[in-house]
Amino acid sequence: MKIAQVAPLYESVPPHRYGGTERVVSYLTEELVRQGEDVTLFASGDSKTAGHLIPICPRSLRLGKAADTLAHHILLLEEVFRRADQFDIVHFHIDYLHFPLSRRAAFRQVTTLHGRLDLPDLPPLYYRFTDMPVISISHSQRRPLPQAQWVGTVYHGLPPDSFTFQETQGDYLLFLGRISPEKRVDRAIEIARRSDRKLKIAAKIDRVDRYYFNKHIKHLLNEPFIEFIGEVDHGEKNKLLGGASALLFPIDWPEPFGLVMIEAFACGTPVIGFSCGSVPEIIVDGETGFIVDDIDRAVEAVGKIDQISRARCRSEFEQRFTDRHMAQDYIRIYHHLLSPSSTQVAA
Amino acid sequence: MKIAQVAPLYESVPPHRYGGTERVVSYLTEELVRQGEDVTLFASGDSKTAGHLIPICPRSLRLGKAADTLAHHILLLEEVFRRADQFDIVHFHIDYLHFPLSRRAAFRQVTTLHGRLDLPDLPPLYYRFTDMPVISISHSQRRPLPQAQWVGTVYHGLPPDSFTFQETQGDYLLFLGRISPEKRVDRAIEIARRSDRKLKIAAKIDRVDRYYFNKHIKHLLNEPFIEFIGEVDHGEKNKLLGGASALLFPIDWPEPFGLVMIEAFACGTPVIGFSCGSVPEIIVDGETGFIVDDIDRAVEAVGKIDQISRARCRSEFEQRFTDRHMAQDYIRIYHHLLSPSSTQVAA
Repeated sequence: MKIAQVAPLYESVPPHRYGGTERVVSYLTEELVRQGEDVTLFASGDSKTAGHLIPICPRSLRLGKAADTLAHHILLLEEVFRRADQFDIVHFHIDYLHFPLSRRAAFRQVTTLHGRLDLPDLPPLYYRFTDMPVISISHSQRRPLPQAQWVGTVYHGLPPDSFTFQETQGDYLLFLGRISPEKRVDRAIEIARRSDRKLKIAAKIDRVDRYYFNKHIKHLLNEPFIEFIGEVDHGEKNKLLGGASALLFPIDWPEPFGLVMIEAFACGTPVIGFSCGSVPEIIVDGETGFIVDDIDRAVEAVGKIDQISRARCRSEFEQRFTDRHMAQDYIRIYHHLLSPSSTQVAA
Repeated sequence: MKIAQVAPLYESVPPHRYGGTERVVSYLTEELVRQGEDVTLFASGDSKTAGHLIPICPRSLRLGKAADTLAHHILLLEEVFRRADQFDIVHFHIDYLHFPLSRRAAFRQVTTLHGRLDLPDLPPLYYRFTDMPVISISHSQRRPLPQAQWVGTVYHGLPPDSFTFQETQGDYLLFLGRISPEKRVDRAIEIARRSDRKLKIAAKIDRVDRYYFNKHIKHLLNEPFIEFIGEVDHGEKNKLLGGASALLFPIDWPEPFGLVMIEAFACGTPVIGFSCGSVPEIIVDGETGFIVDDIDRAVEAVGKIDQISRARCRSEFEQRFTDRHMAQDYIRIYHHLLSPSSTQVAA
């Protein structure tokens, strides 16, 4: 099958550090190539792939410090649409930007929506574009937009060797992610304090979250049981995740997927997650961690964490969250969209 | 002629207060209607026009506090393109957003570029879209993009009765606009100090410019010769402009047009402008004000301001910068694009 993958340009594919969407697009692209598909990747020029790369801008927009990021994405659209008849299917990862064009084009296409969808700006748009097939990354992500044409949910997947399984449990809890109001590192601190455990915090602080960090979080970190590490690279992340007795995921927003949960499973580390967004779909309560509603239940869960088998966590990862599963799920959707019975046809 | 005007959605058309592009689109639309054209305006739902309004969102995005402004503009594109065959020409004021769509559509269209064009992100885009006819709002605005398909320059115009001609000169200098690094209110203060004149500053401070204002400007305002007024409405603006002996326009960036200069002329008030961007095209040096290169020359110009005839400023406005002139210029371009000899044809 001739497949085009259309990535955002903010980060390279794969990204140098942070960049969830670009990382998943990279895993998908490389696994599709391994499975014998003919894949073309539209992405920033510093991207790397075993498929064919069509570079849109020399460097990722963040590294290149672009002032007008939309201009590059309009150029991306143009490059995709002038080549679109070369592909059996075009798979977009750039939200709704291409919808008016795709509606008027004669090729098959599908879009994975990677972001949160609960913004009031979106329903009017998706009411107008019910003919655009879209894929969610969790079932819960769909809730605000029932009118969209959902053609599947595909969970993210990682290469099995990208994280190392650790058989024995470490002696600390871990918070790994961004410091931002919706990620609730303050809850993680409270859970660790009341559980009398060590807590390692490996966290990136985005510019927009600096004020929140300084005002609400910084003063909480002066505790002997906390180790604040800052942003980490992949090797450090692998070590930190593998060495933790549990990953704390005390979120307070409709997380569309939550890659770090499956990274933890890949290391054999259970996850204690708050029941928001995708969490109930990713964690099997009592088997690969615990789904909790408040801090009391989270502290209880920490006390029971030895009941969770780390081998079970790893096998959950291997059975549901590898790049192979993800690629197969997407191929199934591509075939469905390409079948003569599919109603998704653009004029 | 059946004409569509496609406005940005950030402000209503006309805007409640600030919003240069939306204000010009309103002047153009209403004057085209007065000249007998059949005009449809695509804009936010709180817009007002004597033509046909197609509302895209209930309120302007700034008033509605939209989080994802692009979603509404994609919906705007869809509404325009599904009706496009009803118009002889579609006139866009939303930059390059529609280029990939317009290239693939069968109707005539043209775009007025309202913003600064000297960003490094733009040349790759305009190299790819040399078939898209574009209109500049000053000749100088074109400089960074010689590759674009320029089909004309049309200066902005105002209704003749929107500002009141004041025959006698007032006793103060005026700075009117945003407080931002490129507008250089600090220069205006220095010019007034060295000229020993009163200075009124009527200025909006955008959120992004708060830091600049607090750090670089605020402490300069504690002078007896300065009156700081803040943001003003149209009536106050008319009074302030008419009562000034001169408008100071000491900019330090490639201003694409500079509406406030022609607003001053409409009141009979001369302009002392720094030689950047559009300034040498708008001011007739020694006739409707002075074009200067530094503060010494600006102070000299203040000393000579009595040599400028206020009636000459008003007649310059009436001869070059009314909404009627603007609309006629645009109609001429529409006809040119619609003529059989025009090469601008989309597939």
